[in-house]
Amino acid sequence: MAQDYSFKYFTVQFPADHPYVAHVEINRADKMNAFLEAMWLEMGQLFARLSDDSNVRAVVFSGAGDKAFTAGLDVKAASEGSALAKDGIDGTDPARKAAHFRRHVAEFQDCITSIEKCEKPVIVAMHGYSFGLAIDISTTADVRLCSRDVKFAVKEVDIGIAADIGTLTRLPKVVGNYGWVKEVALSARVFGAEEALRVGFVNAVYENKQETVAAALKMAGLIASKSPVAVQGTKEILNWSRDHPVQDGLRYTGVWNAAAIQTQDVTKALLSGIQKRTPTFEKL
Amino acid sequence: MAQDYSFKYFTVQFPADHPYVAHVEINRADKMNAFLEAMWLEMGQLFARLSDDSNVRAVVFSGAGDKAFTAGLDVKAASEGSALAKDGIDGTDPARKAAHFRRHVAEFQDCITSIEKCEKPVIVAMHGYSFGLAIDISTTADVRLCSRDVKFAVKEVDIGIAADIGTLTRLPKVVGNYGWVKEVALSARVFGAEEALRVGFVNAVYENKQETVAAALKMAGLIASKSPVAVQGTKEILNWSRDHPVQDGLRYTGVWNAAAIQTQDVTKALLSGIQKRTPTFEKL
Amino acid sequence: MAQDYSFKYFTVQFPADHPYVAHVEINRADKMNAFLEAMWLEMGQLFARLSDDSNVRAVVFSGAGDKAFTAGLDVKAASEGSALAKDGIDGTDPARKAAHFRRHVAEFQDCITSIEKCEKPVIVAMHGYSFGLAIDISTTADVRLCSRDVKFAVKEVDIGIAADIGTLTRLPKVVGNYGWVKEVALSARVFGAEEALRVGFVNAVYENKQETVAAALKMAGLIASKSPVAVQGTKEILNWSRDHPVQDGLRYTGVWNAAAIQTQDVTKALLSGIQKRTPTFEKL
Amino acid sequence: MAQDYSFKYFTVQFPADHPYVAHVEINRADKMNAFLEAMWLEMGQLFARLSDDSNVRAVVFSGAGDKAFTAGLDVKAASEGSALAKDGIDGTDPARKAAHFRRHVAEFQDCITSIEKCEKPVIVAMHGYSFGLAIDISTTADVRLCSRDVKFAVKEVDIGIAADIGTLTRLPKVVGNYGWVKEVALSARVFGAEEALRVGFVNAVYENKQETVAAALKMAGLIASKSPVAVQGTKEILNWSRDHPVQDGLRYTGVWNAAAIQTQDVTKALLSGIQKRTPTFEKL
Amino acid sequence: MAQDYSFKYFTVQFPADHPYVAHVEINRADKMNAFLEAMWLEMGQLFARLSDDSNVRAVVFSGAGDKAFTAGLDVKAASEGSALAKDGIDGTDPARKAAHFRRHVAEFQDCITSIEKCEKPVIVAMHGYSFGLAIDISTTADVRLCSRDVKFAVKEVDIGIAADIGTLTRLPKVVGNYGWVKEVALSARVFGAEEALRVGFVNAVYENKQETVAAALKMAGLIASKSPVAVQGTKEILNWSRDHPVQDGLRYTGVWNAAAIQTQDVTKALLSGIQKRTPTFEKL
Amino acid sequence: MAQDYSFKYFTVQFPADHPYVAHVEINRADKMNAFLEAMWLEMGQLFARLSDDSNVRAVVFSGAGDKAFTAGLDVKAASEGSALAKDGIDGTDPARKAAHFRRHVAEFQDCITSIEKCEKPVIVAMHGYSFGLAIDISTTADVRLCSRDVKFAVKEVDIGIAADIGTLTRLPKVVGNYGWVKEVALSARVFGAEEALRVGFVNAVYENKQETVAAALKMAGLIASKSPVAVQGTKEILNWSRDHPVQDGLRYTGVWNAAAIQTQDVTKALLSGIQKRTPTFEKL
Repeated sequence: MAQDYSFKYFTVQFPADHPYVAHVEINRADKMNAFLEAMWLEMGQLFARLSDDSNVRAVVFSGAGDKAFTAGLDVKAASEGSALAKDGIDGTDPARKAAHFRRHVAEFQDCITSIEKCEKPVIVAMHGYSFGLAIDISTTADVRLCSRDVKFAVKEVDIGIAADIGTLTRLPKVVGNYGWVKEVALSARVFGAEEALRVGFVNAVYENKQETVAAALKMAGLIASKSPVAVQGTKEILNWSRDHPVQDGLRYTGVWNAAAIQTQDVTKALLSGIQKRTPTFEKL
Repeated sequence: MAQDYSFKYFTVQFPADHPYVAHVEINRADKMNAFLEAMWLEMGQLFARLSDDSNVRAVVFSGAGDKAFTAGLDVKAASEGSALAKDGIDGTDPARKAAHFRRHVAEFQDCITSIEKCEKPVIVAMHGYSFGLAIDISTTADVRLCSRDVKFAVKEVDIGIAADIGTLTRLPKVVGNYGWVKEVALSARVFGAEEALRVGFVNAVYENKQETVAAALKMAGLIASKSPVAVQGTKEILNWSRDHPVQDGLRYTGVWNAAAIQTQDVTKALLSGIQKRTPTFEKL
Repeated sequence: MAQDYSFKYFTVQFPADHPYVAHVEINRADKMNAFLEAMWLEMGQLFARLSDDSNVRAVVFSGAGDKAFTAGLDVKAASEGSALAKDGIDGTDPARKAAHFRRHVAEFQDCITSIEKCEKPVIVAMHGYSFGLAIDISTTADVRLCSRDVKFAVKEVDIGIAADIGTLTRLPKVVGNYGWVKEVALSARVFGAEEALRVGFVNAVYENKQETVAAALKMAGLIASKSPVAVQGTKEILNWSRDHPVQDGLRYTGVWNAAAIQTQDVTKALLSGIQKRTPTFEKL
Repeated sequence: MAQDYSFKYFTVQFPADHPYVAHVEINRADKMNAFLEAMWLEMGQLFARLSDDSNVRAVVFSGAGDKAFTAGLDVKAASEGSALAKDGIDGTDPARKAAHFRRHVAEFQDCITSIEKCEKPVIVAMHGYSFGLAIDISTTADVRLCSRDVKFAVKEVDIGIAADIGTLTRLPKVVGNYGWVKEVALSARVFGAEEALRVGFVNAVYENKQETVAAALKMAGLIASKSPVAVQGTKEILNWSRDHPVQDGLRYTGVWNAAAIQTQDVTKALLSGIQKRTPTFEKL
Repeated sequence: MAQDYSFKYFTVQFPADHPYVAHVEINRADKMNAFLEAMWLEMGQLFARLSDDSNVRAVVFSGAGDKAFTAGLDVKAASEGSALAKDGIDGTDPARKAAHFRRHVAEFQDCITSIEKCEKPVIVAMHGYSFGLAIDISTTADVRLCSRDVKFAVKEVDIGIAADIGTLTRLPKVVGNYGWVKEVALSARVFGAEEALRVGFVNAVYENKQETVAAALKMAGLIASKSPVAVQGTKEILNWSRDHPVQDGLRYTGVWNAAAIQTQDVTKALLSGIQKRTPTFEKL
Repeated sequence: MAQDYSFKYFTVQFPADHPYVAHVEINRADKMNAFLEAMWLEMGQLFARLSDDSNVRAVVFSGAGDKAFTAGLDVKAASEGSALAKDGIDGTDPARKAAHFRRHVAEFQDCITSIEKCEKPVIVAMHGYSFGLAIDISTTADVRLCSRDVKFAVKEVDIGIAADIGTLTRLPKVVGNYGWVKEVALSARVFGAEEALRVGFVNAVYENKQETVAAALKMAGLIASKSPVAVQGTKEILNWSRDHPVQDGLRYTGVWNAAAIQTQDVTKALLSGIQKRTPTFEKL
């Protein structure tokens, strides 16, 4: 069934020249795409729908406007709307405040994790200010691209907190240089595109936002042209393997493929290869 | 006791100038060393024997001929010999087909894992086409070297399946750039020696196959000149630590070394160091 | 309460221009800072005190003299003082010898792990010979810096043993190039500053020891100027996440921050940011 | 804010004599409380609300009518409504069918897991037919009580499938007799209250449904009279510890309690103990 | 294809009145079924064959003669045949001896584990002396039955070693009384049928060997009458779940059943239930 | 070397009729053996010494006086001595208070864990009031015995906190009845000897304290008469296996025994068995 992609803070487009590719853009350019609570709740719903939508095989994720992928959490708005107030509870007991913050953070984390759980590969295209939450979000994506003007920072220590939406957990699993992760997370210093490329945080750097998004769409288009059974299985097994010992990874792969390998896509892909034509795969 | 190394699809040589080094070569050059089922079964036996053979202290693994380390699975042969047929079972029930595929994959995986389980370090020297299964195999080795002409690809999505013999599980633990792993696994694109070196997939690149094999033999020879107690313990503890938290790694190391450190090799190694001569170690 | 930092083998200084930074130096330059048992016991106590000392927010760790951060274990001294002798037990039974070695190694490991457990970030500044134990120690630090003249080696196989104080467990989690880790650990070959930088073992290379230490102090000073609640939480969550799957990392982060986020540092940090002045944080 | 507990298939009551206790009843007695898909979706929402509702401190869960807690999945209805049909996909490809079943089961499992994730303790009171899904559900509760007439069975193998909503994962962690778990899961045989008590599947057996529910309410009332900070922390830490090694359990406990122990409930509880009166705790 | 079940130390029978049930008996009654090395190697092969044999759906495992299921390892024979001798290595170096013991034990463990890995449920029927290895073996089975005359003991400490073939790892996961496990493993004391039943080590006790074996065959027959897709999936998921956290167990179950649930057995089982007749399932 | 066992709050005796057995008694009978901070610090040191003392092979742990093993934490004393005060820090910042509580609890937990880490088996003999901390302590012991008059309770929720020194982590791994664990932890209700025996919390119940201690000494004496290599290996492997999957348990066992099995105790134990005399084992 057709999914509804009308959201307040996100636009979703399906570029005609890239079948099965969804292009999601954060749509709050006047505030440098800074996140309000309503935005991450929307984002969680959006990626859950993309995950289930059999018309989608790959996703590109970028930010509207020239200035920023996202400048991070809208701290001003966050400090005004109190999580405790909404629960109608007087916040004087540290244990009760802790419980409310814990529930709040868990809900926030789940929304961000929805990108990782999205069964379709997600390519994030970043430009300009990409601070704090931008890093949390990007580490849940499968591939990270950026423009030359990007400004990255794990900014949270500068506002007195340890990053709690995923960066500290996922960044060390994305990048193989643990000392570098420690340094940027402890110092909150800004780093640019070249450094991000050198340490492997991004896959490639492009001249500007337009070229970055174009490259992301092209890569998404390529992935979307493959068997969705193969592509979605590959994403899932890679994610599972990250968190498990090798023997468990091998076992899970075997159990997963026991069903997947019965697909008609294998024959279609093999024949297309021999016949030098583009295969057509059923939806998934 | 002496091991028997007569195999149909593999040659095993013991180069005179590199004592204790075994050189294994895939021997199906006319088919670009593409793998038949009989080959991986042989390979499993071969590495189990090398693991137990006290005359072997390091292994070099390469492919015969000029064209390929291995072009991967021999898809044509694979599609002809049906696993179901051999079990004498009519394959119309998806659950029963799944069970047969699962058992089949598990046996295949075990053969490839035998390289990782081989107690002696394995250095793989790759050249030419190194597609699909080539990547699975290489990630079980300890060190990867390649020639300038190598062509790598995690090719499986192009035939409609998720790679299921180990690449998706081991590659992210071999290379610290997770975004790069995702990209090459999802796109099946070909990458070359320089890229492989840059992301850390290979340790070094050489001009051609001959120089690659020569460098592998030299490295194997160096390792084979060290205490086999120290070398085999080092491999084992590194493999264990990959799959366990740090505290478990430290504990396992302490228990392992409680026996290993009682070896006479320590005294021999220390004395040789002082006396500037080459130590001789007992077999293991 | 004020901690006592009078140690025989280590000097601890508090540079006036870097508030809250402790500078620890190994103080056995005439022996290239080679470690005796008494030294690692002292080192364990020293870092336990730094961890608890609310006057310390970041630590720099270096070695005295021009020649070496540390040449590693003082093998000569180690072979003279027998662990068995001290226990008053006749060491002829391999199982009993094993038990004594195991206990001995566990105690040694715990002392080295005290650097990792130190709640304040530790930046190690290495120069000259940095062999064996130098690698074990440096992998417990958060950031590694070195001078151009540094000589690194995972030296243990050359004395007939597998490294057992942490290198084989931690180095693969510090550096994302597993083949490189295998090679240097199996071959014991020396590698220099440029190679260390390229594989991500060190964060940066400086001209000489003085500049390395100065850079370390500067980085420590920057970190020490941030909220200690945020900094210490960041270190802890990164260490926990290394050893756990992503979901466990996220959950732990949420539980940790439920208390941490109630700190007054958040308001102080936000206000200081707006008012462009340096915040002052309470001790921790 | 007040939660809405109007559901089609479940009634929720707040017994006047047991403050802070919610009594949930499955409300499809004419069909022996057999589950439709709409029911487990409702149940997931219901327990998520109970988890967040600061007016609830403990939950009793039972089934309406005399005949059954629940006879399990409504197999007839399940076979009529095809998951594939709803996705508008032609179900001839085994891999695509597998993907749809997998997503479907994940959603079903999440609904059942909502009972385990409910931060307030849940006591299940079972009577009559308690087959299949009844076991899945009961293993997510904290305490299991039953009446003498109860009929339990892990019934799934009798309809040709392995139980997939939680029984096979949770039952061995609930009951310490692994051979018994294997036997009842492999044979699908019916077992009664006495056997359930003997192996520890239920905490206690009562004469009939009324007495079982009364006992459950009494136990829930007792728990609800305690500090909600202490009770909810106890449930959470027990659940975490089930799935982690002891050292991780201890560490998590320490981090959890660092906030929880700052509660005013400790003083209230201590004073009430001394003054022999019933303490009043703030909502949570 | 038909499996070959001619073994020297084991008899395999297919009782006519229990279709699809294999009855394996240890066949060295004159030595109280004590195990030689050749026996465990045979046993490993035997259970690997049973696992693959589509004519087998459940297995009963017992010991020939009146006196013993098995008195354990044939210590006399074991001490005569030296593992070191076979490797042609002079056993004076403790590290090399350790390596040989370690490889030897790993091979021994793998043979015993083959019972656990056997995809068909295994019911062990024990009588008389059931010491040492008898416990290791029985903990790999799915269900344990015994006769009233059985004599159990975790006997290994009485010969100066910690049990190393599986008892210390599996017994605490079979029985929920950890203090009892510690006591019997540390004291090596003999315990009987009643105690074994009380702590849940055995599922049931019968008057004598004949009745025990008869009961085992009956239970095996019942299991063999069910859908083999459902039965084998149930065993596999239970074993996986024992070693993984609940979330991993649920996920694995969903992936497993995505293929399994497509079986025609579901329809057959449901129809047979309605029509009150015995279903016939295809081989697996 | 001889250990010093002069402690203020504990007496240590070596009963003449039970060689190698240490009998530790909590020595604050006038306060029902309630624990002060100084006591758990002493207890940690005491068990660390017992662990290293080659004159000790088994330990009995009981409480002085008629009334209690221990009534738990001395809450009155605990509330008077503030952990914050000792750190000279003004406790108004919830994050800083949390850090101090966390460090404090970690130190407390480590002292209790020292019983579990003690390499010699520990048998705890409980009588009278055994509340709160008594349960934490007893779950770290290997075997639990009690007298008929014992009164157990997981008492912590009654003072407004979740038990944080180990009970919630270890009790579910000691007892196989998870529902019972949940009930007693959530309700804080008192339970007696018979219930403790039925659920497997204690191994046996005796008439009074004297008989309980006598039985503990007898069991300790039996264990102390066995090979200490075998006994200590058995304890260690059982503890390791509790926290790891079966394959890791088997591997660890093999590595451990590779050294242990080289002990002369095997020959001594076998010969003594044949010659029907009591073996004498070297110290460990």
